[in-house]
Amino acid sequence: MKVSELSRRTGVQVPLIKHYLREGLLPPGRATASNQAEYGEDHVHRLRFIRTLIGTRGLSTGATKGILEAITAEQEDLHQVFGIVLGVRPAANEEDADDEPPAEAPERTGPGDARRLIAEMGWEVSRGNPAAHTLAEVLTALAGLGSDIDWHSLLPYARLADGMADVDMQQMSGERSLLAQAERAVLVSVLLEPALLALRRLAQEDKSARHFGSDGSGVSDDGAHLADSAD
Amino acid sequence: MKVSELSRRTGVQVPLIKHYLREGLLPPGRATASNQAEYGEDHVHRLRFIRTLIGTRGLSTGATKGILEAITAEQEDLHQVFGIVLGVRPAANEEDADDEPPAEAPERTGPGDARRLIAEMGWEVSRGNPAAHTLAEVLTALAGLGSDIDWHSLLPYARLADGMADVDMQQMSGERSLLAQAERAVLVSVLLEPALLALRRLAQEDKSARHFGSDGSGVSDDGAHLADSAD
Repeated sequence: MKVSELSRRTGVQVPLIKHYLREGLLPPGRATASNQAEYGEDHVHRLRFIRTLIGTRGLSTGATKGILEAITAEQEDLHQVFGIVLGVRPAANEEDADDEPPAEAPERTGPGDARRLIAEMGWEVSRGNPAAHTLAEVLTALAGLGSDIDWHSLLPYARLADGMADVDMQQMSGERSLLAQAERAVLVSVLLEPALLALRRLAQEDKSARHFGSDGSGVSDDGAHLADSAD
Repeated sequence: MKVSELSRRTGVQVPLIKHYLREGLLPPGRATASNQAEYGEDHVHRLRFIRTLIGTRGLSTGATKGILEAITAEQEDLHQVFGIVLGVRPAANEEDADDEPPAEAPERTGPGDARRLIAEMGWEVSRGNPAAHTLAEVLTALAGLGSDIDWHSLLPYARLADGMADVDMQQMSGERSLLAQAERAVLVSVLLEPALLALRRLAQEDKSARHFGSDGSGVSDDGAHLADSAD
């Protein structure tokens, strides 16, 4: 198909397709004339995948290219691909949102506590896993705020996260080609993240209403709740 | 204390403190001279909290101000504060990372499927909860990629997320002042998010090695693993 048809099939504008071709995110089509090329189903699939990583997940063009290259190069070893995917930091961290480097770090308890939590869970993880740094950063921030939420408080969350990783591994089984498996590793590990946070936030709203909701003043006036309380 | 002392105590540079004062994130100090003011422990605490939201969580100045105002204004009703916190979208979504609006949406299955999942879980959530939109977006993206991961596949995750929200509510108990409770709601719901994703990624690496790791080729040569295999 021509690039115009590729654009129609995927909903991606032609100039953006050409941008991805120039940046090497999309492999070139088969040249049919000096300034024309023919594209196939692989391109449709790849383009949708690119748009998902960039659009839904907020990844930069560079991070997306890194993932695509990893999938192509390392497809013989799914654990390797998983490692590369896990090494990709979310876009929010890439370019730090506001200003300045992170300020205070009063008693660098974070890294040690992160290691203690990992050890307590019996997880074997490489030193380079950026998630350990993220965990340490949050623990340091909590300590800096004088909060009593420490690594012990995170253990119940860690057990539930461990359960989520079990589900992740089940999601990975039953795939055929190695490339399909690798793509699925990206979907499951990266693309699901906002959905998992969203599920927790939905559950939080539900539980917050039960725990802290007052006699209706906490519920806006859309009449959407069937009150059976009478106080 | 003077602004220089406030800076020393918190590790935040004086020009940045003045920026937060101008933007109204930090309440003004008590004026002692035409161009001098006296700050208290409240300012130290507030400033650390601001740096945490901005630095660790990647929130913009505007989003941070919104949360602080919500805490101050709505502190009588913790469920209300929770609602406001849950309504704050993470910074990654605020300013969309790359280019263009989200591309294809072939068969808007997402919103309906998100509602089905929420109903199946028995969660009572308001229509305005942005997490429902996030969930729908991810489901739509998965369908657009031809993935067989659908709302049924997310049910095991939803049950674990429900467990996380239970832990969240336990974390909320035992606090004293309403302002402290409100701040804790922010810590628990917003600040913990990157830590929860990090915990899942750590568990993923551990389990990925067990499920997919080959005979050691998946482990880099840092000798950090005590091999008891002999093949």
